Amino acid sequence: MQAIIVHEVGPRDGLQAEPQVVATAKKLEWIRACVAAGVDIVQVGSFVHPEKVPQMADTDELFRALAAERPEGTVLSGLVLNEKGLERGLACGVGLFCLGVSASDTHKSKNTGMSTAEAQARIVAAAREAVAAGKAVQVSVQSAFGCGFEGRIPADRVLDIVRAYAEAGLMSISLADTAGHAHPHQVRELFGRIREISPAIRCTPHFHDTYGLGLANVFAALEAGVTSFETSFAGLGGCPFTKVAAGNVATEDFVHALRRRGLRSEIDLDGLVELARDVAGHFGREMPGRVHRTGPLSY
Amino acid sequence: MQAIIVHEVGPRDGLQAEPQVVATAKKLEWIRACVAAGVDIVQVGSFVHPEKVPQMADTDELFRALAAERPEGTVLSGLVLNEKGLERGLACGVGLFCLGVSASDTHKSKNTGMSTAEAQARIVAAAREAVAAGKAVQVSVQSAFGCGFEGRIPADRVLDIVRAYAEAGLMSISLADTAGHAHPHQVRELFGRIREISPAIRCTPHFHDTYGLGLANVFAALEAGVTSFETSFAGLGGCPFTKVAAGNVATEDFVHALRRRGLRSEIDLDGLVELARDVAGHFGREMPGRVHRTGPLSY
Repeated sequence: MQAIIVHEVGPRDGLQAEPQVVATAKKLEWIRACVAAGVDIVQVGSFVHPEKVPQMADTDELFRALAAERPEGTVLSGLVLNEKGLERGLACGVGLFCLGVSASDTHKSKNTGMSTAEAQARIVAAAREAVAAGKAVQVSVQSAFGCGFEGRIPADRVLDIVRAYAEAGLMSISLADTAGHAHPHQVRELFGRIREISPAIRCTPHFHDTYGLGLANVFAALEAGVTSFETSFAGLGGCPFTKVAAGNVATEDFVHALRRRGLRSEIDLDGLVELARDVAGHFGREMPGRVHRTGPLSY
Repeated sequence: MQAIIVHEVGPRDGLQAEPQVVATAKKLEWIRACVAAGVDIVQVGSFVHPEKVPQMADTDELFRALAAERPEGTVLSGLVLNEKGLERGLACGVGLFCLGVSASDTHKSKNTGMSTAEAQARIVAAAREAVAAGKAVQVSVQSAFGCGFEGRIPADRVLDIVRAYAEAGLMSISLADTAGHAHPHQVRELFGRIREISPAIRCTPHFHDTYGLGLANVFAALEAGVTSFETSFAGLGGCPFTKVAAGNVATEDFVHALRRRGLRSEIDLDGLVELARDVAGHFGREMPGRVHRTGPLSY
C-alpha cells in the first residue's frame, strides 16, 4: 500500500472561517508545530484581497518568514484564486500552488462572481503559468459532492471539470466536499469514475464533517485507492460562502485512524494532539475533532 | 438489500451515563417520540439495582406505562444483567430481552464482579429461560472491539463468546464497541469471521464515537452485510465503567445517512431531529450528534 499524504489546511480553511483574526506569530507557531510533527504539506494561507478576507492578509508575510526557516520535509502550499494571487505567490516562495473552481454555479458566483466554465478557463491558464514557472500545482473542484444552495451536484458536472484539468496536463486534483454532503457510496463511485478518465490522476479529497460522515468518507476514499487527503487541526473550518458551516475532518483524528492500521506511524500524533488542544484553547470553544479531547489510543 | 433495523438505546445507554436522573414523564415523552418516528426497537431501560444505578430505577414503571399504550410496530427492549433482572422484566412486559457479557475481564469484573466465562454461563442460562417463556432475546458481547483498560481485545476471545451463544441457539447477537476502539478494517474482519461461524447469526453492532470513527464503522458493518444497529438519540451515551466516556453514534445521523442511500425513508427523520434537540436542550450542553445541529439535507 502506498504511503498516505497528509495535507494540513487548518491555517487556511480553518482560520479563514473564523471571525477573529489570528496573529501572525500564533499562526507561525501552529504551522511550525505541523512541520515539526512531520505533516507532508501545510496550507499556509490564501492569496485573496486583504480587505475581503482580513484573516488571510498576512499570507505573503507568513511564506517569507517560513521560507527563511527552510523547513525540511514539509511542502508549504498556498491557495490562489486569480492571476493577482498567483503573482503574489510566485513572489514569496510558495511550494505548492492550489487553485480551483466550484462545481456549483451558486457557490462559485457567490465566491468569485464567475460561472464554472469561465472560472475554469482562468484557473487552468493560471495553473499552467505556475507549472511553467517550475512550481508544483494542485487544482481543485469545490462543492464536488453537493452544495448548500443547489443541493445535489451531478457527478457528470464534476467529471467534466476533472477531464478538462487532465486534458490540460493538471493531474493532481483536489475534490472538496465544501458543504459536507458527501456519502461513502457517492465517494467510492466518483473516485472510481475518475480513475476511468485516467489512472494517472492523483486525487486529494477534502471532507467536511457537517453530517457526521467525515471519516466514513475518508475510508470510502481509501478503499477506492485514494492516497492523499486534506484535513484541518482540531477539525476547525467551514466555508464562509456555504449555507451550513461545519468542521473539517480533524488532522489528528485522521492520523490516529491511519495509525490503527499501521500507517504513517512516524507522524508525531502527540504533537498534533497538543496543537489541536492549543487551537481549541485559543478559540475557547469546543472543536469538532475527537482525539484531542479523549486523548489517543496507546496501541 | 434487506431493510436496516434501528434499535434506539438512548433511554438506556444514554441516560444511565448521565449524573442527572431524568423524570419518568420526560423519559416517556422521549420514548413515545421514538415510537412515533417509526424506530423499530427502543431500549426502555435496564433492570439493575436501583441504588446502584438510580437513573434506571423507574425501568419497570416505564414498561408498565408503555405496555398500557400498546405501541404498534415498535418493540420495547430491556437490558437484563442477572436472574433478578430477568424476573423483573418478565413481570412488566418487556418485548425483547437484552443480556450480555464483556469480552474484557477488567470491564466485566468492574461491572458485575464475574469473569467472562462465569458471566456467560449465567447469561446463557437466563437467556434460555427468557426464550422458554416465549420472549425474544438478544445476547451481547461488550468491549468486543477494544477496552479502555485492557486495550486490544483479541478477536478470538470475541469469537469464542459468539460461538458459545450460537451453540446455545442464541443467534441474535449484539457486539458493542463500549470504549469506541473499533476500526473499519477490524469491523469488516470480525463480522466476516462471525459469518463463517454461522450465516444464521444476526449481528447488531453498537458503536461509540470516541475517536470519530462511529459512522465509518457503521458503513464498514453495512458492507459486511450487517443489517441491524444500536444507536442513541443526539449521540448521548458513554459507559460509566469504561475509562474514556464518549458518545454513541447518533440515531438521527444514522437515519440521515441511510436516507442518502434511499433506505428507511419512511422513518420520520424530522421527528428524530426534534427529539435530539429536545434531549440536547434538556441537558443544556452540546451533544455529539451532528444532524440535530445542522438540520438534515433536504434531498
